[in-house]
Amino acid sequence: MKDVYIIGLGQTEVGEHWETSLRHLAWEAIDAALKDARLKQPDALFVGNVLAGQLSKQEHLGVLVADFCGLRGIEAASVEAAGASGGMALRQAYLAVASGMVNTAIAAGVEKFTDTVGSRATAALTSATDSDWEAAQGATPAALAALIMRRYMHEFDCAVADFAGFSVNAHANAKTNPYAMFRNTITAEAFAKAPMVADPVNMFDTAPDADGAAAVIVAADDFVWAHRDASQRPMIRIAASAVATDSLALHDRPDPLFFRAANLSAGRAYKQAGIEPGDMNVLELHDAYTVYAALSLEACGFAPRGLGWRMAGEGGISLRGKMPLSTFGGLKARGNPAGATGIYQIVEAALQLRGEAGANQVAAPRWGMAQCLGGSGSTAVTHILERVGRDS
Amino acid sequence: MKDVYIIGLGQTEVGEHWETSLRHLAWEAIDAALKDARLKQPDALFVGNVLAGQLSKQEHLGVLVADFCGLRGIEAASVEAAGASGGMALRQAYLAVASGMVNTAIAAGVEKFTDTVGSRATAALTSATDSDWEAAQGATPAALAALIMRRYMHEFDCAVADFAGFSVNAHANAKTNPYAMFRNTITAEAFAKAPMVADPVNMFDTAPDADGAAAVIVAADDFVWAHRDASQRPMIRIAASAVATDSLALHDRPDPLFFRAANLSAGRAYKQAGIEPGDMNVLELHDAYTVYAALSLEACGFAPRGLGWRMAGEGGISLRGKMPLSTFGGLKARGNPAGATGIYQIVEAALQLRGEAGANQVAAPRWGMAQCLGGSGSTAVTHILERVGRDS
Repeated sequence: MKDVYIIGLGQTEVGEHWETSLRHLAWEAIDAALKDARLKQPDALFVGNVLAGQLSKQEHLGVLVADFCGLRGIEAASVEAAGASGGMALRQAYLAVASGMVNTAIAAGVEKFTDTVGSRATAALTSATDSDWEAAQGATPAALAALIMRRYMHEFDCAVADFAGFSVNAHANAKTNPYAMFRNTITAEAFAKAPMVADPVNMFDTAPDADGAAAVIVAADDFVWAHRDASQRPMIRIAASAVATDSLALHDRPDPLFFRAANLSAGRAYKQAGIEPGDMNVLELHDAYTVYAALSLEACGFAPRGLGWRMAGEGGISLRGKMPLSTFGGLKARGNPAGATGIYQIVEAALQLRGEAGANQVAAPRWGMAQCLGGSGSTAVTHILERVGRDS
Repeated sequence: MKDVYIIGLGQTEVGEHWETSLRHLAWEAIDAALKDARLKQPDALFVGNVLAGQLSKQEHLGVLVADFCGLRGIEAASVEAAGASGGMALRQAYLAVASGMVNTAIAAGVEKFTDTVGSRATAALTSATDSDWEAAQGATPAALAALIMRRYMHEFDCAVADFAGFSVNAHANAKTNPYAMFRNTITAEAFAKAPMVADPVNMFDTAPDADGAAAVIVAADDFVWAHRDASQRPMIRIAASAVATDSLALHDRPDPLFFRAANLSAGRAYKQAGIEPGDMNVLELHDAYTVYAALSLEACGFAPRGLGWRMAGEGGISLRGKMPLSTFGGLKARGNPAGATGIYQIVEAALQLRGEAGANQVAAPRWGMAQCLGGSGSTAVTHILERVGRDS
């Protein structure tokens, strides 16, 4: 199996792109990533997307995007695992390169939400849950998150206000991220007054649906060493790639307060990378809801069961904290363009490891981890990245 | 890179499954394939599907199917490349196993069409074309195939009746396939009188939209040798796996009568397998329209440019012919359950190589090829299978 490196990064601003088409958004991110990698002709393209079929009446995104990017002829396909689609696209690119079948591949994610009326977009998003047993009962993703959060607060004796720190931190970090959707500061006081979305989940507990595209270029070790330029930019190795699943429906879980897929996937990733949670220097988790941030921290071994929420209040997750989290704003403030989110996380973690995170830089990180979730934590994709010196 | 073998096959009858849900159909095929492989716990699942989001309001099929099959926890995702989605699911499973990341994987395809009214199903299918530049102009897949067929007849001096042989052959072969949708004989005379769908494409030129699911289990060479049973059943090696693309929109092609993706993909596959078209013993191509069969035969090197249609009339494509085609009925008569079609082709080619094709058996084949197409030949996925003796 070949070692796989990330050699190019690209992203568009996350937001409402009413005047930019789906294919154009994807091109913008891929073009930037190819230029960053100084690569003209990659071998393959994997596109993470959830909603184009339902919202844009466009399937077959692999070909659409390859063709529009001037890459007609290359291998291309789209990959879907709800909110984890971006991570799955990288997983496929990783497998393609690791196998030796291709030398270089693009993992991209793209999503267009906002030129659809909100109720239709929510209905489409709800297709990531169990449509026969959840969606058909009217349970939207936010409603399911509300069930989880209510139960969490009951079991672990905490209040809505105790989750504020996750969102305050995310907005603080997004402020200096030119690609973020919401660059405004929010305070714990504002959080306390936020309107309810699905009690107890309030507007500042949830990440905004958004348009956006992001792309990374991956390459096999031998290709990377043969083509390395004279720059001293550190290399980014994918030290681990792991996927796991749980039940699709929340009510099928023996313990709805345990993100089993996140736990399994992170465990497999630690094993592959040969490290432990304590070794991690930067962390991008799936904070689509604040309670997901807490449960992800617990499932991945960064906090004991039932105590993930405490990390929100201790300052340990800030850029200067012990375990920097959502360093460019996370889903909450960078925005959540569903199928692209997992790739944004990778771009951000890689920027940190390269030391190119600007005002958002955490101190000299070696290990970064990105985990995205699909549905109510039903799919989890975990990647661990390692900064490798030019001469190692 | 590890060698990859097919160790299990499963399929449901193709047809109108009004009383069986999407997940149940998938389970039926996967359960059969796991039993055939004598495997209980595969490592990963890749699901080919095109339309569940649009027609069943269900995305996230990887988890849905894994969970319903009792495989909660395993890696799972869905893969989409329009009509080539099934082939792409096998491609992903192949890459996962070839890389060494997993030992065994399921490649499945599933589609539910027929409990949706026809016009909605057609609209959904049309999302496999370029939605902004083709679908928005009212061009359905059949309308695009009609443009191709009309031009083909003009350029290469043939008539609608000259394509009848493809459909006659497909129906003749489906007659003894218990999984086929249409097991009736059709004659050249009936073909000539068939009602028009999109002039000159008539009802017997086109494959029927259908429900169905199929699955194959793939495994790494070392796993296969460690677990082989005492049976003398031949082993099926995936000798080549290759994907290529063309433009999404038909009007973007310099030559609309050349299936460039099919040509590129087949070329890469021949190179990987180290064989030529003349070595092939059994062939499953994407006969969604009879003119596609002709163009695929030309693109893959089985007929000279402009002469693919002649193979329909020469008897060379029958089970006893020189190049047996659509040996279980092809898309035309077995039926075309979009995202499952590519896996049906693999199941059928593998049954031939195993010598388990019953009344449809071609004489002692060693090499089989399956190629599925997405859109107007915009994506092509080619797999070449080889029968390997137990002791080789």
